[in-house]
Amino acid sequence: MSESVSESVERTWKDECGVVGVWNNEHASRLSYLSLYAIQHRGQESAGIVTVDASGEHRVQKGLGLVQEVFDDVSLDRLAGRAAIGHVRYSTTGVNQMANAQPMQANLFNGPVAVAHNGNIVNANEIKKRLKEDGAIFHATSDTEVILHLVARHHSSNLVECLQAGLEELDGAYSLTVLSHQSLIAARDPYGFRPLVLGTLKNGDGEKSWIVASETCAFDLIGAQFVREIEPGEIWWVDASGEHSIKMKKKRERASCIFEHVYFARPDSIVFGQSVYGVRKEAGRRLAEQDEKEGFLKDVDLVIPVPDSGVPSALGYSVQSGKPFELGIIRNHYIGRTFIQPHQAIRDFGVKIKLNPQTSVLSGKRVVVIDDSLVRGTTSKKILQLVRAAGAKEVHLRIAAPPTIGPCYYGVDTPEKSQLIASSQSVESIAKFVGADSLRYLDLAGLKEAVQGQNGGYCAACFDGKYPTDLFGLDRNPKGHLRGIDA
Amino acid sequence: MSESVSESVERTWKDECGVVGVWNNEHASRLSYLSLYAIQHRGQESAGIVTVDASGEHRVQKGLGLVQEVFDDVSLDRLAGRAAIGHVRYSTTGVNQMANAQPMQANLFNGPVAVAHNGNIVNANEIKKRLKEDGAIFHATSDTEVILHLVARHHSSNLVECLQAGLEELDGAYSLTVLSHQSLIAARDPYGFRPLVLGTLKNGDGEKSWIVASETCAFDLIGAQFVREIEPGEIWWVDASGEHSIKMKKKRERASCIFEHVYFARPDSIVFGQSVYGVRKEAGRRLAEQDEKEGFLKDVDLVIPVPDSGVPSALGYSVQSGKPFELGIIRNHYIGRTFIQPHQAIRDFGVKIKLNPQTSVLSGKRVVVIDDSLVRGTTSKKILQLVRAAGAKEVHLRIAAPPTIGPCYYGVDTPEKSQLIASSQSVESIAKFVGADSLRYLDLAGLKEAVQGQNGGYCAACFDGKYPTDLFGLDRNPKGHLRGIDA
Amino acid sequence: MSESVSESVERTWKDECGVVGVWNNEHASRLSYLSLYAIQHRGQESAGIVTVDASGEHRVQKGLGLVQEVFDDVSLDRLAGRAAIGHVRYSTTGVNQMANAQPMQANLFNGPVAVAHNGNIVNANEIKKRLKEDGAIFHATSDTEVILHLVARHHSSNLVECLQAGLEELDGAYSLTVLSHQSLIAARDPYGFRPLVLGTLKNGDGEKSWIVASETCAFDLIGAQFVREIEPGEIWWVDASGEHSIKMKKKRERASCIFEHVYFARPDSIVFGQSVYGVRKEAGRRLAEQDEKEGFLKDVDLVIPVPDSGVPSALGYSVQSGKPFELGIIRNHYIGRTFIQPHQAIRDFGVKIKLNPQTSVLSGKRVVVIDDSLVRGTTSKKILQLVRAAGAKEVHLRIAAPPTIGPCYYGVDTPEKSQLIASSQSVESIAKFVGADSLRYLDLAGLKEAVQGQNGGYCAACFDGKYPTDLFGLDRNPKGHLRGIDA
Amino acid sequence: MSESVSESVERTWKDECGVVGVWNNEHASRLSYLSLYAIQHRGQESAGIVTVDASGEHRVQKGLGLVQEVFDDVSLDRLAGRAAIGHVRYSTTGVNQMANAQPMQANLFNGPVAVAHNGNIVNANEIKKRLKEDGAIFHATSDTEVILHLVARHHSSNLVECLQAGLEELDGAYSLTVLSHQSLIAARDPYGFRPLVLGTLKNGDGEKSWIVASETCAFDLIGAQFVREIEPGEIWWVDASGEHSIKMKKKRERASCIFEHVYFARPDSIVFGQSVYGVRKEAGRRLAEQDEKEGFLKDVDLVIPVPDSGVPSALGYSVQSGKPFELGIIRNHYIGRTFIQPHQAIRDFGVKIKLNPQTSVLSGKRVVVIDDSLVRGTTSKKILQLVRAAGAKEVHLRIAAPPTIGPCYYGVDTPEKSQLIASSQSVESIAKFVGADSLRYLDLAGLKEAVQGQNGGYCAACFDGKYPTDLFGLDRNPKGHLRGIDA
Repeated sequence: MSESVSESVERTWKDECGVVGVWNNEHASRLSYLSLYAIQHRGQESAGIVTVDASGEHRVQKGLGLVQEVFDDVSLDRLAGRAAIGHVRYSTTGVNQMANAQPMQANLFNGPVAVAHNGNIVNANEIKKRLKEDGAIFHATSDTEVILHLVARHHSSNLVECLQAGLEELDGAYSLTVLSHQSLIAARDPYGFRPLVLGTLKNGDGEKSWIVASETCAFDLIGAQFVREIEPGEIWWVDASGEHSIKMKKKRERASCIFEHVYFARPDSIVFGQSVYGVRKEAGRRLAEQDEKEGFLKDVDLVIPVPDSGVPSALGYSVQSGKPFELGIIRNHYIGRTFIQPHQAIRDFGVKIKLNPQTSVLSGKRVVVIDDSLVRGTTSKKILQLVRAAGAKEVHLRIAAPPTIGPCYYGVDTPEKSQLIASSQSVESIAKFVGADSLRYLDLAGLKEAVQGQNGGYCAACFDGKYPTDLFGLDRNPKGHLRGIDA
Repeated sequence: MSESVSESVERTWKDECGVVGVWNNEHASRLSYLSLYAIQHRGQESAGIVTVDASGEHRVQKGLGLVQEVFDDVSLDRLAGRAAIGHVRYSTTGVNQMANAQPMQANLFNGPVAVAHNGNIVNANEIKKRLKEDGAIFHATSDTEVILHLVARHHSSNLVECLQAGLEELDGAYSLTVLSHQSLIAARDPYGFRPLVLGTLKNGDGEKSWIVASETCAFDLIGAQFVREIEPGEIWWVDASGEHSIKMKKKRERASCIFEHVYFARPDSIVFGQSVYGVRKEAGRRLAEQDEKEGFLKDVDLVIPVPDSGVPSALGYSVQSGKPFELGIIRNHYIGRTFIQPHQAIRDFGVKIKLNPQTSVLSGKRVVVIDDSLVRGTTSKKILQLVRAAGAKEVHLRIAAPPTIGPCYYGVDTPEKSQLIASSQSVESIAKFVGADSLRYLDLAGLKEAVQGQNGGYCAACFDGKYPTDLFGLDRNPKGHLRGIDA
Repeated sequence: MSESVSESVERTWKDECGVVGVWNNEHASRLSYLSLYAIQHRGQESAGIVTVDASGEHRVQKGLGLVQEVFDDVSLDRLAGRAAIGHVRYSTTGVNQMANAQPMQANLFNGPVAVAHNGNIVNANEIKKRLKEDGAIFHATSDTEVILHLVARHHSSNLVECLQAGLEELDGAYSLTVLSHQSLIAARDPYGFRPLVLGTLKNGDGEKSWIVASETCAFDLIGAQFVREIEPGEIWWVDASGEHSIKMKKKRERASCIFEHVYFARPDSIVFGQSVYGVRKEAGRRLAEQDEKEGFLKDVDLVIPVPDSGVPSALGYSVQSGKPFELGIIRNHYIGRTFIQPHQAIRDFGVKIKLNPQTSVLSGKRVVVIDDSLVRGTTSKKILQLVRAAGAKEVHLRIAAPPTIGPCYYGVDTPEKSQLIASSQSVESIAKFVGADSLRYLDLAGLKEAVQGQNGGYCAACFDGKYPTDLFGLDRNPKGHLRGIDA
Repeated sequence: MSESVSESVERTWKDECGVVGVWNNEHASRLSYLSLYAIQHRGQESAGIVTVDASGEHRVQKGLGLVQEVFDDVSLDRLAGRAAIGHVRYSTTGVNQMANAQPMQANLFNGPVAVAHNGNIVNANEIKKRLKEDGAIFHATSDTEVILHLVARHHSSNLVECLQAGLEELDGAYSLTVLSHQSLIAARDPYGFRPLVLGTLKNGDGEKSWIVASETCAFDLIGAQFVREIEPGEIWWVDASGEHSIKMKKKRERASCIFEHVYFARPDSIVFGQSVYGVRKEAGRRLAEQDEKEGFLKDVDLVIPVPDSGVPSALGYSVQSGKPFELGIIRNHYIGRTFIQPHQAIRDFGVKIKLNPQTSVLSGKRVVVIDDSLVRGTTSKKILQLVRAAGAKEVHLRIAAPPTIGPCYYGVDTPEKSQLIASSQSVESIAKFVGADSLRYLDLAGLKEAVQGQNGGYCAACFDGKYPTDLFGLDRNPKGHLRGIDA
């Protein structure tokens, strides 16, 4: 289920970005705004839109905050033009955030180019070092600037050729939208790590508008039709002469991020060809199957989700197990970023700002609590305490994914390995830490089956440690996360 | 389920207010802030807190907007003192809003007094007229000022005596918290229209703090213990000598607002002695029973709620009917008040800002859609269109309450009678208007049973037109709503 | 010279308020805005406008801050109507400021009434006490509310009669504008302490609009014609039948505030019948005459003002003495309220935020520094240090007014008596304290002559201690200032 | 005299920038803030500060607005470090302003470098074109980025060498401050177009801090000592080993901007070795000499300045002519950027928002009005109308500079040539246009003498059309102004 504003504050596993693109629509900036709004869950710290106006100039609006904080009617009107790209970002904290806000925009010898990027380039530091020795200037610390430099260094009047040449040098994850004064380009790395989808919309003139977005929920919101995925390794573009597509020379086995299904993507999106809601429900159903095999279910009274992200899996668990599904924990949706956190002194009273377990539902019951994943364990611990304090007799935690044991190097901001509780502790000891009477995870085979047999097509490195690329020393970075790295 | 910020914009039936009070706690302003935050759904247009500082002076912070917009760390620190009352309000629009913001505060001959009020006084205009002729000044249009004037006109050094004398003159709905330099008072009209509950909290010194609030969810959030309802007709107070209680002379048959259970209150609150979640689930169960009797259920594939308020009833319906519960409509929780609404031109594309029906769930299915109530019918119409566009083969609407036929005069901002679709149209014609293959309401008997046999104890005037008080001509007001009325 | 935003922060002697009124103009709110803007120097902490709209209802906008911070295009449009009053205020600090913001507005038995008040009622506490015992409610601590209550208690359908009856009970200073749904009223206490002037403007329909304001500079800004003073003890009003005037029964000898000429009023205003610029220049000329008589002038090189308020007097001194006038101190006009004050550590470097003495002008010179008044002496001390540090060989301070020895009880926020350096120290010791080689004040006779022989017509209590009214114990208030007093 | 916030809105001749630098002071960010504040008149649209923190990283805060709007206590604290540079800017309007905000910051192969630039590079477009063909990326349209690229392309580990090599390629105006992790650099083009001065301050540890700024008034404000100008063609720097200086190979005849003395610089600054106040006063004196020779003075009653910028010249005119100086026009210093401009309907009443001529001073008089310069003539026209409406019998305009006939290409934002009224019209016809009974300018010889015989040392191209550099086609740009140019 989609995430509210506030939850992001506590989440330890954050997607870095979402991207969109619009071509041939007089409302390009407003459609970008709405599309970014639909994928707000992919990045809540900054947002930006770049358009190309009638004179071929870029217009830019970027800022820190939610989509609705960065743009207003005035700025959307100012973003004139029939083509646009947009970006939402979970940015680095503190110092110099604005320099890294996207889309990143530049004037090259062949005109203005803007890029919006979701993902992480694993060999970015190597390339940066080389470019700097060759006189390149970097204003920001993000990988996106590397892409712009590689494009600028290839001498062709054909932007797509320059872009392809640049992308062939990269390794890692990138789902891009690119805007020049003549075209909208969408490109995806050969692994297909991050999602990127193509859609169309009939514009006001009865002509076809093209829409690109990270997730299909953006199409739903603006009433666009989903056409297909941008393929791994594909460079697709549309210009005055119509749409075109080429494939990159570099070929790789598909390795789409399984965690998009587990947690990131909105439940109402179709990601990598499948309904996220459906996958999560199936994962919950398989969790119940596992419990059935273990003979666990006979002594359970009810199933409750950790709202909102655990809801589909809990429904699946309920259907398979026949145990009643209840909203045992009510979530407060009003929390915004200006909420004044209570002092420790007040916190000690037992404040429940976000989640309120219902005594009337839980009292005296043997409860199965379903969550989508378990990263550090600290949040689960708090939740189980609340559930028990509301009178639950037994509290059993079920996770609709395998234990997370490794950090991500492909565009997800994960805690360092040492903070992934499952990387160093047994299931029993985790159960003890979080205060569960029992704890069980969905096994990786079950999760892969829930995503319907595309076993070879997914990267599950966070669950099995098998990274599809060379890591270029990133795994020796003690911090274990990739944001803000610069040589 | 609790309401998000944005939904209030469209809702046509709004509770006017929520109140809180805190006594004997060094964090009085912050506990008030958190408590108001928990009852934010009762009023999102203005918020205020008044404290009494060490020198016996009132400190006041009021403003337009959500609780988290009105207060910040600086203002909460400035609101020094160990006692406080607070208020959230659905205020009148446009002109002079701030003058009506609460708590209302005044300096009387016996010191400073502040009042926070939830409800509506039906004989306020009569009393105002009399007081003005006697030289009284009214700065605002709200009923609350009438209460202050009545207190001021009774010559006793005992504030509770003055208050009681004043309240005996009133007819209508009031749940009050009152703060002087010496006491915190809570009072409720003899009908008990609006909720008001009492709780305690151990403060930092190990002593007992007292908390008063409109709903128990405020206690849950701050970790307070629910003690009991303030009784209809009770004046309760706490001062340096401890807690006290008296009963007003005026006696009335209890007439608590049944709509609190149907829609207003948070599902995790205990209201009028019962779990709101439980009542709603039971209402849904009874809806399914009705359908069973009609032989309707055999041709249904699944049950979906209108999120979030229809969820508990849909769960109850699912349990009783055995039909699977699905989140067929996903709700976007990010929408805030700064969201830029799309132009009509874009809207025509079929924009779905708030609710996104899932084709993967609904396609080809015969669907029962459950909502808590149906007022004008326009929102239901849009939702059913979306559900049908997502591929549902049949769409049946079930309402977990009776048809709403009359406006409320007891503190709820309702549309005028002519806009209540059920006041003039048959169920069949409403079904046609909203585009439902069938429409059925829970009957009033069923709803009253869902609130467990307190039949005599509820006001259901909006469903049956039986108003427990004289209306003093208010029913002849063509606008049919009560806000901002002044002779 | 008019004061910039920032100077008010340091000023120790502040006028409490300025008032305006507009009648019969479709741009009433905008003319009020511009008029308040012209008298911004009279109050920079809050501002407000009340209009009467076409339906006879008041519309109100009040807020903390400068005129341009409180109003915007939206609020000025919302303030519909052809009649308005407005107010700027130097408000109390800290607690509950908004409750005292003006105009104060109320609904009386004979309709809505709003009042804007400049001045201070010396017997307000006595009257308040009596009214409270009679059941009156006070929401604020200001005197203005007393006026509203007195009006409300007089039973006549004629608002002017009620107002006159109320005003006859008051003692002290008041220049009022009052707005009902039928008339605009201007009234001034029998002493004529504070200024109040009447003007006209041709409106868009070719008819006459009426304007009332504290100072004529408001007329200049909006292009209105100055007609005359509202007389001491006069109640003037305009309604559908034209303009009217009556005199109060209470008669007093005129006692207009001489400090308006010395410091408060804008130099381009005509106050109490005379040009403020002219009076100040004449005061400076007389200062030079005094110095001539003392044989002081022969050893002086140049005359410099403390900018901006000392400029006219320095020009007068220069003309009389024949000594060159130079802008020896340059003032920084950019300072606004959001300026971050430097830390003490930086301050120690010798920071000169506001005033920069010019070494190229002052170096090696014997300098006469002219200021309008000297209250605590601390600001003068800093300025003289700067002048000396810029190389001045001798620094002589001349004050274009007598020593200030007493606080004001008639609407000026003065420091308590003990902080008025001249109340306890000799001129020699003050000269030593401020670091002047010599110090001389204009004597009271000279100042009175500068205001052209209206000797009997001025209150100079701050210079001579002769208070024209009974003080009702206010002089026993240890704080010596009047803001926020409440029994 | 320094300019207030609002006047800039109307001014047609704007300096593009001001720069500062601080080295070896624990309060580096706050000293930069105060220094920028002192030179706020040089740019009011954006402001920025970059510091180097203890770890050698840049910290950046930039924003649109005044210095006091861009920074607050939090941001100044965040700007940790003992070295800083800062910038204020009159930026381009509308599109993409933030990308051009300065200081501009980049990561080069030899570390982070930030640049703040005042001036305009006349061959920037030629260099940009070449760099782009070589693969360089430009994010902004400003010349400053060219400088960064030239530095990046020179392969030396010595930043000063790289900078010198880059600067030798430039033609035009630049006064720079540059900050790396190891040094603070100040550089000035060989013509010395724009000012740049060096100062010192004893820091808290008793050691010497270095300060660089556009004008000496920045030193005055923070209590720093003026040491000397940075020489034309000089590159000065300070690092751990102390201060250093080299001269560029390119030699040019000095051509400092004479308009800094006429209008731009603050009167309390020492610019190009002379007091600005002194130069302006002398210019006024020479204007009076001219009038004496013409026998004009006998029929004049008084001299008034257009405030504030005409004040020094009017004082000089008064001294020479013996005619009395009066503040005949009072200026309103409160106007800020949020002021709501009156509608045309109100404007027609004769609104005088900013300048209020005093009838009491002007009525019946023959008046000489002194202004610093005359560009389009439209502002002068309005002012003379006001003066005449206030009763002046004759109004004679005197300009303390020659007629402005050519646009500036060296860092001043001027109107295009066709809008410079003196470029196409005779003095008589200008006099008629502005409504003066007579008009006279100071001749160029007189102005050059006022700046004390450095005739060869000044650029007066705006007065005589003699541009010291090749213009690289800029004079063929139809718009006649240089902002935002990009190939």
